[in-house]
Amino acid sequence: MPHMSFEPDVLQGFVQRYLDTVAGGTADDVAALYAEDATLEDPVGGGEVHIGRQAIAGFYKGMDGDTEITTELLMFRAGGHEAAFVFAITVGGAMRIEPIEVMTFDGDGKITSMKAYWGPQNITPL
Amino acid sequence: MPHMSFEPDVLQGFVQRYLDTVAGGTADDVAALYAEDATLEDPVGGGEVHIGRQAIAGFYKGMDGDTEITTELLMFRAGGHEAAFVFAITVGGAMRIEPIEVMTFDGDGKITSMKAYWGPQNITPL
Repeated sequence: MPHMSFEPDVLQGFVQRYLDTVAGGTADDVAALYAEDATLEDPVGGGEVHIGRQAIAGFYKGMDGDTEITTELLMFRAGGHEAAFVFAITVGGAMRIEPIEVMTFDGDGKITSMKAYWGPQNITPL
Repeated sequence: MPHMSFEPDVLQGFVQRYLDTVAGGTADDVAALYAEDATLEDPVGGGEVHIGRQAIAGFYKGMDGDTEITTELLMFRAGGHEAAFVFAITVGGAMRIEPIEVMTFDGDGKITSMKAYWGPQNITPL
């Protein structure tokens, strides 16, 4: 069985592109980074898993609009075709959240799964 | 379908117990924290997944002996019955590694899966 793997720098590039798109793109732009049959769980344990690019675009629709979003990659770890990372996201200058996320990628660099670990205790009012 | 979930403090307790046991216990002590049919991938992408408590004990055997190991939890995120965290491990005062790990737990608090994300670039000689 072939063992698919990316160099750490390449995986970090995928993650940075994702964070840049979350900050500067539309929901459809972000969804386009996902594979057609990808899954998204954010937050993990929230009881809902979004399956497929259309459902994923729906999840990100809340980002569209006038609210300014910034993102910053704080810590990055690579593993095969997976990545784990810590990042900060600020929403409308009102709050900052620092999740840990885990992503898997297919051979084309599309996100096949995303899981975001965070809770109310990881939100800081600004 | 019931949605199994632990409070964040409880999950953090499981993780702290794990890190304390890695630092101060034997390989069998650490393996006893895992469920019978648990899986362990460390590092993720390394090409090997250890399946079952006996294989997992074998993985930790390298810890037994005179080498001093210390661990420190640096960042913790909870989600349902899962946890994601950053920690530091020092081995024999010679090197420090800072992985991101993801664990899932069963209803008894046993670890059902562990994945450790790190690579050579996350090792610091001391």
